[in-house]
Amino acid sequence: MTTETTTGTTPRPIVGLVMGSDSDWPVMEAAADALAEFGIPFEADVVSAHRMPTEMIRYGQTAHERGLRVIIAGAGGAAHLPGMLASVTPLPVIGVPVPLKTLDGMDSLLSIVQMPAGVPVATVSIAGARNAGLLAVRILASGTDELAATLRADLLDFAQELNDVATRKGA
Amino acid sequence: MTTETTTGTTPRPIVGLVMGSDSDWPVMEAAADALAEFGIPFEADVVSAHRMPTEMIRYGQTAHERGLRVIIAGAGGAAHLPGMLASVTPLPVIGVPVPLKTLDGMDSLLSIVQMPAGVPVATVSIAGARNAGLLAVRILASGTDELAATLRADLLDFAQELNDVATRKGA
Amino acid sequence: MTTETTTGTTPRPIVGLVMGSDSDWPVMEAAADALAEFGIPFEADVVSAHRMPTEMIRYGQTAHERGLRVIIAGAGGAAHLPGMLASVTPLPVIGVPVPLKTLDGMDSLLSIVQMPAGVPVATVSIAGARNAGLLAVRILASGTDELAATLRADLLDFAQELNDVATRKGA
Amino acid sequence: MTTETTTGTTPRPIVGLVMGSDSDWPVMEAAADALAEFGIPFEADVVSAHRMPTEMIRYGQTAHERGLRVIIAGAGGAAHLPGMLASVTPLPVIGVPVPLKTLDGMDSLLSIVQMPAGVPVATVSIAGARNAGLLAVRILASGTDELAATLRADLLDFAQELNDVATRKGA
Amino acid sequence: MTTETTTGTTPRPIVGLVMGSDSDWPVMEAAADALAEFGIPFEADVVSAHRMPTEMIRYGQTAHERGLRVIIAGAGGAAHLPGMLASVTPLPVIGVPVPLKTLDGMDSLLSIVQMPAGVPVATVSIAGARNAGLLAVRILASGTDELAATLRADLLDFAQELNDVATRKGA
Amino acid sequence: MTTETTTGTTPRPIVGLVMGSDSDWPVMEAAADALAEFGIPFEADVVSAHRMPTEMIRYGQTAHERGLRVIIAGAGGAAHLPGMLASVTPLPVIGVPVPLKTLDGMDSLLSIVQMPAGVPVATVSIAGARNAGLLAVRILASGTDELAATLRADLLDFAQELNDVATRKGA
Amino acid sequence: MTTETTTGTTPRPIVGLVMGSDSDWPVMEAAADALAEFGIPFEADVVSAHRMPTEMIRYGQTAHERGLRVIIAGAGGAAHLPGMLASVTPLPVIGVPVPLKTLDGMDSLLSIVQMPAGVPVATVSIAGARNAGLLAVRILASGTDELAATLRADLLDFAQELNDVATRKGA
Amino acid sequence: MTTETTTGTTPRPIVGLVMGSDSDWPVMEAAADALAEFGIPFEADVVSAHRMPTEMIRYGQTAHERGLRVIIAGAGGAAHLPGMLASVTPLPVIGVPVPLKTLDGMDSLLSIVQMPAGVPVATVSIAGARNAGLLAVRILASGTDELAATLRADLLDFAQELNDVATRKGA
Repeated sequence: MTTETTTGTTPRPIVGLVMGSDSDWPVMEAAADALAEFGIPFEADVVSAHRMPTEMIRYGQTAHERGLRVIIAGAGGAAHLPGMLASVTPLPVIGVPVPLKTLDGMDSLLSIVQMPAGVPVATVSIAGARNAGLLAVRILASGTDELAATLRADLLDFAQELNDVATRKGA
Repeated sequence: MTTETTTGTTPRPIVGLVMGSDSDWPVMEAAADALAEFGIPFEADVVSAHRMPTEMIRYGQTAHERGLRVIIAGAGGAAHLPGMLASVTPLPVIGVPVPLKTLDGMDSLLSIVQMPAGVPVATVSIAGARNAGLLAVRILASGTDELAATLRADLLDFAQELNDVATRKGA
Repeated sequence: MTTETTTGTTPRPIVGLVMGSDSDWPVMEAAADALAEFGIPFEADVVSAHRMPTEMIRYGQTAHERGLRVIIAGAGGAAHLPGMLASVTPLPVIGVPVPLKTLDGMDSLLSIVQMPAGVPVATVSIAGARNAGLLAVRILASGTDELAATLRADLLDFAQELNDVATRKGA
Repeated sequence: MTTETTTGTTPRPIVGLVMGSDSDWPVMEAAADALAEFGIPFEADVVSAHRMPTEMIRYGQTAHERGLRVIIAGAGGAAHLPGMLASVTPLPVIGVPVPLKTLDGMDSLLSIVQMPAGVPVATVSIAGARNAGLLAVRILASGTDELAATLRADLLDFAQELNDVATRKGA
Repeated sequence: MTTETTTGTTPRPIVGLVMGSDSDWPVMEAAADALAEFGIPFEADVVSAHRMPTEMIRYGQTAHERGLRVIIAGAGGAAHLPGMLASVTPLPVIGVPVPLKTLDGMDSLLSIVQMPAGVPVATVSIAGARNAGLLAVRILASGTDELAATLRADLLDFAQELNDVATRKGA
Repeated sequence: MTTETTTGTTPRPIVGLVMGSDSDWPVMEAAADALAEFGIPFEADVVSAHRMPTEMIRYGQTAHERGLRVIIAGAGGAAHLPGMLASVTPLPVIGVPVPLKTLDGMDSLLSIVQMPAGVPVATVSIAGARNAGLLAVRILASGTDELAATLRADLLDFAQELNDVATRKGA
Repeated sequence: MTTETTTGTTPRPIVGLVMGSDSDWPVMEAAADALAEFGIPFEADVVSAHRMPTEMIRYGQTAHERGLRVIIAGAGGAAHLPGMLASVTPLPVIGVPVPLKTLDGMDSLLSIVQMPAGVPVATVSIAGARNAGLLAVRILASGTDELAATLRADLLDFAQELNDVATRKGA
Repeated sequence: MTTETTTGTTPRPIVGLVMGSDSDWPVMEAAADALAEFGIPFEADVVSAHRMPTEMIRYGQTAHERGLRVIIAGAGGAAHLPGMLASVTPLPVIGVPVPLKTLDGMDSLLSIVQMPAGVPVATVSIAGARNAGLLAVRILASGTDELAATLRADLLDFAQELNDVATRKGA
């Protein structure tokens, strides 16, 4: 698993991409790819809610202080990572349900999306890590700074590109 | 249904709260309440994907030009509104699955969350409109401007308040 | 994907066969085959609700003006194509739930069949594209013109043929 | 239950509306209402697949000979009526899953929609009888005769009316 | 598919084993094997509810007149065969849900087991054809004639044999 | 709960009707009614697999020795009664899934129907106790004795009566 | 909600009974009752995983140091409390899925039971708080001390009592 | 299958590991491994509820007399073994839902976890045999004897090891 992303003089990460296990990486990698496509500096790490609970809480509590603006968290089965992080950070947390060997990710989906009132998780589709990355881009693009303006333009280009590709396939 | 929210000299809405039918309002009202609690100017309207498709597309296409920064969309059954809006706007779209008479909202949830790669919807729990509002606040709070800083502080206070209430109940 | 179907002096297509992605073609091809077996002129194309929303709306709005009499639409996951087309055309729209990697097409089925009152989609079984084609034939055969009379006779022959094949297998 | 619909000099029914039990009528009535709104002459009757199998087969076999052009069939639980009728008629059959005391109609839906290749049923949503009626209208409107032209225009008006009502609610 | 079972001077079949398609045979074969193990004369055939409806009705209506005492019927998807046969015969009908490509046989199970009051189907597990055969043996063994006495003794031996095998495996 | 059924000079019970709890009686009563309608002598009792395991095993082991020919067993949730009885008797066991407060009887259904190869349970619909009674009648009617002949005739009359009632409702 | 249980000179609690919200108390109360019936000293409190994450972690980390020997945790929806406690304590944690307004507790069940390898939660049935209490008693009774011996005898009496009550109901 | 575990002068087994079929061993083996890692003496055997009901009851009834302190029971489909054992023993019973060919273990899970009030089963995740073993360790570690103290320390080490491994993977 490639966990380091920003080296040398690259800007400080603004998205934290975490997952409950390194076995989630084949699914979660698509989130990293999406962020990279839009030039978003990010960090990726394994932060297990169940095996590293203290570190997980600390990760969430300090995330916004370390400059992160969005957290993407993927987990499978009784997937508690996205919701637990959301409970200790004011940042928007995007949850990716990772499908395991049985139940096709339905357990992961419900464990992530059915959060109680007060602590939201922005849930994407089962194994939908690419959309998690794109949602992080949309969130950053909803801001009022220069980065947001750039990303908003990039997203409009991206939508046009999706359209072009789909149109060509249908032609 | 109270659809107008900003009158007089109130600031321009920055969150658009839409739903497929006015019968969704009893569920969706909680999103409006959450936004109001944090002082977020918003607009609320019925924009049906199936009965007002052209207006729906236009609503989505122009949303960011009109100053909206986040869209919250609630719908039930074959719930296409959040996904269709997401396909025509670069803004982050938050989807609220509204439960109808049968299936307990499972159809609404799957119709909203299982979006194809390229067009994310930030899905919250079934009938989780309050969390949709709070997620919009978190998104606005993830920005780099003064509003974001204020909201971030408010969210930390809000989390503390949740904690205090829960603690008192348990005492 | 073979999208062109009518060339030379062949009659104008009367069935539009569309799908959300060219990856749906292996499933949807069976609809084309069924139409071809009954000699129905049709067109096939990729028209993605989420990546080509404007084109999709236009496709639906103009379908009956271009001479189409039935639309068959296949899509997977949060499958919005059949329902969105149904919202902008007076034509009967047949929806085919395409199963994706997880959930066995249950998400596709519910996203297509659970349409709100006012906008029906004639849903067939998961991956049931052949039946979508046959349903289109039945619809055309329910008319009052010469084509209908011919198709009705063909359908009776077809049912007899199904019967013969099943009987032979059991013999 | 009002089973007779056409008396006096009214035109011959062109839609057959049947259900497995008179207890389905509270759900199925909405199909009758939709047909009546568009002036479609229809007949309504109880035709149980399980308690009147011979009559059911005969109903299906003779339907097109009696002038019916579309059949709407509603049933609950192990709902075999729509599929069995479809197996003995060349007409398009619209199936309405009626929810019973348990399972919220999921058993009815799967029993109706999951038909094998060769025998399609045009399935609408759980308890979606109104849409069944509207789908019958769309099918009749897809024809090439004068009735079709009239109904097509009526359907466009109907869509506009849906739009107007939704827009007013949102205003 | 091996459909013939009784040749030469073998006794008349007393169990009818039918299935909706010859593709069900790999699942249904285990019922034939179980019947053969207990020396029950039976017949096996394809009798499709949807492709051979008239023959299916006739098969059911005449089954008891032809000397059959139990019917075993397997089908998949919208599995109507067991229930339809039960509606036209006074014989006990055993239904076997055959799993198809999607939904793991849940659609087959619900289509078979959820019969309305008045027309029972004795449903066994998904793909549980062996148990269907054994249930037929139990039914025959519940009689008052000599065959029943023999089968009852055989079933007690069979249970002991199951016990012995399981015990040896655990040893 | 009326557990006694045979008093005075009434014939010895040939059907055993048991349930896991007296709270199942409102559902299971319909089985008793069906048996009574056909004049089948039966006994009814609470025999809990989980609270009376030894008695339950003994009930099953001695059932056929006491003259019972069919067992009907109803239970809810993790419903083990039908399957456990089937494991200790050579008699056909009919299982009735009783729905509890949550899950609509789906847990009961799967716990009863999904028996391993070797030990069949004849499962009827969720809360389908009337059909359990009728299935017992069909099983008794599949015999070769005088009772069977009488019951077979009664079942044909019963089917005709069902038909008449359904036909009248539809008239 | 009665949260205090041991006052005065009562022995130190050995079971911790916690829940995510005081709205879970009507369900969870049955666990307290079961513990009280067996004379087990326990404490009951609201410890929300999502609103009191730090306190929740601390509760779990210190539980065994404070003399607790078993933890019972109830929660609904995306129910993270039992699993998160299990991740920070060596004690056995019993999870009770609390059903909320939709999904009948299926989301709660999967969120609790589907824990990853390494961190077990002993899950009981949906709303099965009484069984959670009884399971705690069984765990304490599996020990080697005097309390265990006493509880083991009490559990045997309890089982006999269940048997007696069930037998009387069936009589 | 390795069923013997304690030979020679090894201590008497204190955990009984049983399963319904030797085909469950590939899943259940992980429970044995976990017990072995913590040095817990155990026995493993096939004890089928359905094929060895009398032996199963006896196994449960005598388990605590033979010195067992915890039972782990795995089964698939209509999985009755854990619940039936729990009904005849005062010991804590841990149930492992074994997934079979269809339904992904959902039938196994519900058959095990949905036990009626009075007879608890400590259910772990689908195929979660390793967690069953670890839960047995936690239960033994909750005691008051020397073994418990040792195991508690071992469990704390184990948790730290899980943490270390997860941290290294993320590094």
